[in-house]
Amino acid sequence: MKSLILYNWEVRDEYIKAFSSLSKEELFKDRNAGLGTIIKTLLHIIDVEYSWIRAMNKKPDISINLDEYKDLPEVLELSNQLRVEIKEYINQWNDNLENDRVEPSWMEESFRKGEIFRHILVHEVHHIGQLSIWARELGIEPISSNFIGRDIFNKLKNM
Amino acid sequence: MKSLILYNWEVRDEYIKAFSSLSKEELFKDRNAGLGTIIKTLLHIIDVEYSWIRAMNKKPDISINLDEYKDLPEVLELSNQLRVEIKEYINQWNDNLENDRVEPSWMEESFRKGEIFRHILVHEVHHIGQLSIWARELGIEPISSNFIGRDIFNKLKNM
Repeated sequence: MKSLILYNWEVRDEYIKAFSSLSKEELFKDRNAGLGTIIKTLLHIIDVEYSWIRAMNKKPDISINLDEYKDLPEVLELSNQLRVEIKEYINQWNDNLENDRVEPSWMEESFRKGEIFRHILVHEVHHIGQLSIWARELGIEPISSNFIGRDIFNKLKNM
Repeated sequence: MKSLILYNWEVRDEYIKAFSSLSKEELFKDRNAGLGTIIKTLLHIIDVEYSWIRAMNKKPDISINLDEYKDLPEVLELSNQLRVEIKEYINQWNDNLENDRVEPSWMEESFRKGEIFRHILVHEVHHIGQLSIWARELGIEPISSNFIGRDIFNKLKNM
């Protein structure tokens, strides 16, 4: 499970870097699908991961205003900043927590932590798939979505 | 891990159903991104999952000719047919297999089974993200990519 978070972070960072060549116009252009714009999709990925991790950690949600971020360096800074808290949570994760139930502060329904963890994982991969289409349309070589070949298991040791 | 395979299958089936309203022209239209066409993307998802499961099972690859399939009912039939063998493999999976290494018949490199399993999982989610963009462009409501709310853990019992 942790390895898939690390995979997501690596791919996310590579997309932020790849999109750094885009004009503000392209970054903020409404593409009529997914979250609309490239910058909102990246922020939404970061926001959703953070919200659910805090829910698993039984902390209230801190909402992120997607309209506040003006460029990719700001997005990257937010992403890196929130990872400190997320890493702390992930590093104490163990499979005995799978069946614990929590109710996120923004919902009136409880979920098993194992279910939430998987929800977080597929959420980012799904939106990255959307970004790959837009990348290609904009003449940017999409980032490899391969899990193999990234040496993720070894990198986990330094997480 | 098994739960994410079940999630992938459920979302895949829902997309095949949602796309059944599309004309052949739209299904086979080159969209200049991802695998090119909607039908090829679906077949590629099925093909890659099957190839890697057979590799984990130390069986030689059986390649699928993506140009042989003429409509979505044929794609669905292939998907359902291959699931029988995949299910059998998945049902004997246990975490002790994580570090076993295998070399797929089409490569000259070995990988840990745990690495391959995660590769299979994210591969489908990534391509489904691409399909969600094309769905929206074609006026089809994209399938929910949520893991929560699908009751996957309970459905696993019948897998």
